[in-house]
Parts: sequence; C-alpha cells; structure tokens
Amino acid sequence: MSLELLSSQKSFGGWHNRYRHRSATLQCDMVLAVYLPPQAEPDAKLPVLYWLSGLTCSDENFMQKAGAQRLAAELGLVLVAPDTSPRGPDVPGDPDGAWDFGHGAGFYLNATEQPWAQHYHMHDYVVQELPALVEANFPVNDKRGISGHSMGGHGALVCALRNPGRYRSLSAFAPIANPSSCPWGEKAFTRYLGADRDAWRGWDACALLAERPARHLPILVDQGDADSFLDVQLKPAVLQAAAAAVGQPLTLRLQPGYDHSYWFVASFIDDHLRHHAAALHG
Amino acid sequence: MSLELLSSQKSFGGWHNRYRHRSATLQCDMVLAVYLPPQAEPDAKLPVLYWLSGLTCSDENFMQKAGAQRLAAELGLVLVAPDTSPRGPDVPGDPDGAWDFGHGAGFYLNATEQPWAQHYHMHDYVVQELPALVEANFPVNDKRGISGHSMGGHGALVCALRNPGRYRSLSAFAPIANPSSCPWGEKAFTRYLGADRDAWRGWDACALLAERPARHLPILVDQGDADSFLDVQLKPAVLQAAAAAVGQPLTLRLQPGYDHSYWFVASFIDDHLRHHAAALHG
Repeated sequence: MSLELLSSQKSFGGWHNRYRHRSATLQCDMVLAVYLPPQAEPDAKLPVLYWLSGLTCSDENFMQKAGAQRLAAELGLVLVAPDTSPRGPDVPGDPDGAWDFGHGAGFYLNATEQPWAQHYHMHDYVVQELPALVEANFPVNDKRGISGHSMGGHGALVCALRNPGRYRSLSAFAPIANPSSCPWGEKAFTRYLGADRDAWRGWDACALLAERPARHLPILVDQGDADSFLDVQLKPAVLQAAAAAVGQPLTLRLQPGYDHSYWFVASFIDDHLRHHAAALHG
Repeated sequence: MSLELLSSQKSFGGWHNRYRHRSATLQCDMVLAVYLPPQAEPDAKLPVLYWLSGLTCSDENFMQKAGAQRLAAELGLVLVAPDTSPRGPDVPGDPDGAWDFGHGAGFYLNATEQPWAQHYHMHDYVVQELPALVEANFPVNDKRGISGHSMGGHGALVCALRNPGRYRSLSAFAPIANPSSCPWGEKAFTRYLGADRDAWRGWDACALLAERPARHLPILVDQGDADSFLDVQLKPAVLQAAAAAVGQPLTLRLQPGYDHSYWFVASFIDDHLRHHAAALHG
C-alpha cells in the first residue's frame, strides 16, 4: 500500500498531489490525485470526498477544471480523484479503439466476462482499495462522501447504493442514471457483465434504488437541460421516478442552458461541496 | 471585424464563447475566448479584463484552469483571452521547434526582424485590434483592465506602460519582469527585435518604468517563492527596484510555497479580479 509521489503543488493554501501505486484489485499501476486542504496537518482527521470522473477522463480533469479546491480548502475537505479505468499495456482496451469502452471507461463495476474480468474491477478499487490506501496514508477519518460526473455520476450512485453505511454523502452531475437502458451502458454492460440483463441490475442506480433505497442518504443531482446526452444516455427522469417510488430523498435540479461539460460542473460544484461538507462534518 | 462563433457554453450564469477571426494586424486567423457574465445583456456596458497567457498557452489555459469565471460572473467583468502568438502554416515558428519562441511565444511585442516582422505584432493586436473587435461586438464599455501570467505578465505590464490611459487597471502573475536580462527574453528579443539592445528598452517593463512610470495605475503582482523560474527568468526584485526608483505604486506579494503553475494563478485570481473590478467599476 505504498504511494509514489509524482508531483506536489501548492494550491489554495493546501497541496495538489499526484501519486502512482500498484493496485492489487486492478492488477496494474494506477495514478490518482489528492487535494489536501490547509487543515490537513499530520494530526488532523478530515473527511474525504471521492470524485469519479466520466468517459475519457483521468485523475486530472476534475482537479484542473472544476474549481473545487477553493471551497474544499475553506471547508476542510480532502478531495480524491482516481482514474476512470485500469490502464497500461497489459490491460485490454476497446478492440476498435472506441472512447466509450475499456481504457478511460471502466464504468465502476466488477467485470465478470473475459478478457475484462482480470483487470476491470473499478467498483472494488473505488469502494475498498482506494479508501484503505487513503486512510492509511493521509490525515483523514472514515467519513466518506462520493460524487462524480456522467459515467462517474453513475459510479457514485452505484457505489453508495451497493454499500450501505460506507458513504455519508452522495451527489452526482449528469449521471448515466439508468445504464441498463442507454447505448453507453448497454455496450459496456454487455461486454463487462455478459448478455444476461439480470446481472446488470446490481450496477444500475435505478434498479438498485428499487431494491435497496438509501433513505438516510439524500441525493443531490444536477443536470443541464441543454446537455446533448440528456435524453438518450442520461435519463434523469427515470432516476427521479425510481426514487419517488421508494421514498428515496432526491433533489434533481435541471439547470437551464447548461451542457455536459466541466463548465457546468464548475458552475455548481460549490453547492455539491457544501452538500457533502454538511453531512461529513456533522 | 467579423467573428465566427466556434462554441458557446453556459458557465456561472453567463457564457464561455470561443471565436475565430481574421486578424489584419497579424495576417492570420486567430482564435480567442470571451467570457460574458450574466450581466452582459444587449444594452449593458461592462468593463473588460484582458488576460495574456504564458509560453505554450492558447486561449484555453486560463479559461479552463484559473477558475476566474465564478467571481467574474459576480463582479460583472467580461474576460477576454487571446492566443499567445500568430498561428498557422504561413506563420514561421521556431526553426528548431523550441517551445519558448515562435508559435505560442509571441512575447506581446512588434517584431522588426525578418522573417518575424510580417506576423509577430502581438502588441498591436492586443492593444488595438482586439479591443476594437471586442468593443464592436459585445456589450462593453471602454474601461479596460489587463493582466497575465509569465510571458503574459510581461505582456500586461508592457502593454499598459507603453499606452498611458488605455488601461484603467493592471496586474500580473509571475511576470517575466526584466526580459532584457533573462534567457527567455534575450532569445526572443534578439530574434524579434535584433541584436541592438537599445531597441529592447521599449519592451521591458523595468526599462519602461524608468522612462514612463504610470503612477496613476497601481500594479498588483503575485509571485510564488517556489517558482523554479524565479531567479533566472522572472526577477521580480528588479521590477520592485525599478518601481521604487520612480515612485510607481507596486504591490509585490511573494507567496510562500507556490510554483509557476495555474494552481498558483487559481489560488490568487480572486484578489486580482477584485483589484481590477475596483478600478474598472469606479
């Protein structure tokens, strides 16, 4: 569980660090970014917000573009951004070189089908190995929040709903809310999980909500109404209906004029940070 | 003076737009980014902050990484970020493909030497053509501020000092403060301006301050003290001495632990935006 420091840069009175480590879960080297706010003194115990990024992203996109560090520094939140899939020459990618599967597109699940099953266990990496690594190496406590964007919004919802009690706060930006019934999800789930759609239910936020709502965990979701992926890929209305059916607290905000980009994320990240901080510092 | 809209994305209630236009000054097509805050209604007259980026940058780095739009939206400031040099297949670049000269490295001057003199007139582009374009196409007034980073900090200082009255506010992050006596500047000035160092004085903030201080224009400069370029390339102490010698108001803040990156810029951009807004809205 050792971390190799790749870079360390002062930011908003804290430090933006990047690390490489060998992941036993993914059987490859992984890079992650950690923002340590100024409160991260050696004897501190700070809560951690895990951020899961979307298709094609690495650990860098959120940290560089979301503008989250300013308020995280004020709120005393550690931010952790892992990569979006296993990587490396030994990790198989999309056979056609597509950007929506394989490298950069791990979908935060545990693959069962070959050749993906050896490396593509991003769920276990995010939920188990990564927090263990973070909690062993940084001045943090075990109060965890999780959020993400697009594929990472799906990941945040699924990681929290599958693991009751593991996260104290949950939010998402433009999540792939119902991957079992959208092209991105159907392509990924068919390959990673096989053709049997029953096996998909454990990896779909809408199906999970029906079976195991997390009524103690209010969910904040922002979605731009000018997002070009809204109707075909994201389907927030299905999530809203699934939440309503089981009494799951969900605030879905349709933000007029916003698209799917990090300009949208940056515009509302402060609200999400405050949503998480309220639960994590409580 | 027509602008071709390349993209338009909602951000913090306003719009982040990118445009292409034909520059008569530079004799090539140029791309620029404009952030229009929510106050930019058709009948508004908002002040404009021009941002000049550093070596290797385009119009994108500042807009994506500095986190300036959040407060610009609150303060009602239009942000304009041009490219850092003329571009295109007809524009000669560094003969050795170096990153510190030519494309991405126009140094905000008017070149006099061949083959650079045909296109490399970034000073006139930034000071004349760009404001004329912006003021003809957007709901802005003629209250202009200017700032920048590294090579762009040099550019901001030089553009403001050479053109009294044209800018109402001035600041810089880690500027190349004395380019006549640092490797980046000596390489660029020798090629763009020739070997006669007398011709360099009009493009060096320290030399300009001695000849024509702008005592009505207080300058805010931030500089990280862990910046690896500090002693050899940037030389803020020379700027500070030049300002003190002529009574030029200059606030130089050495920020402990910060490097040369956009993490540094993002950490202090709010102070600069407030510095500019105070003068521009006054």
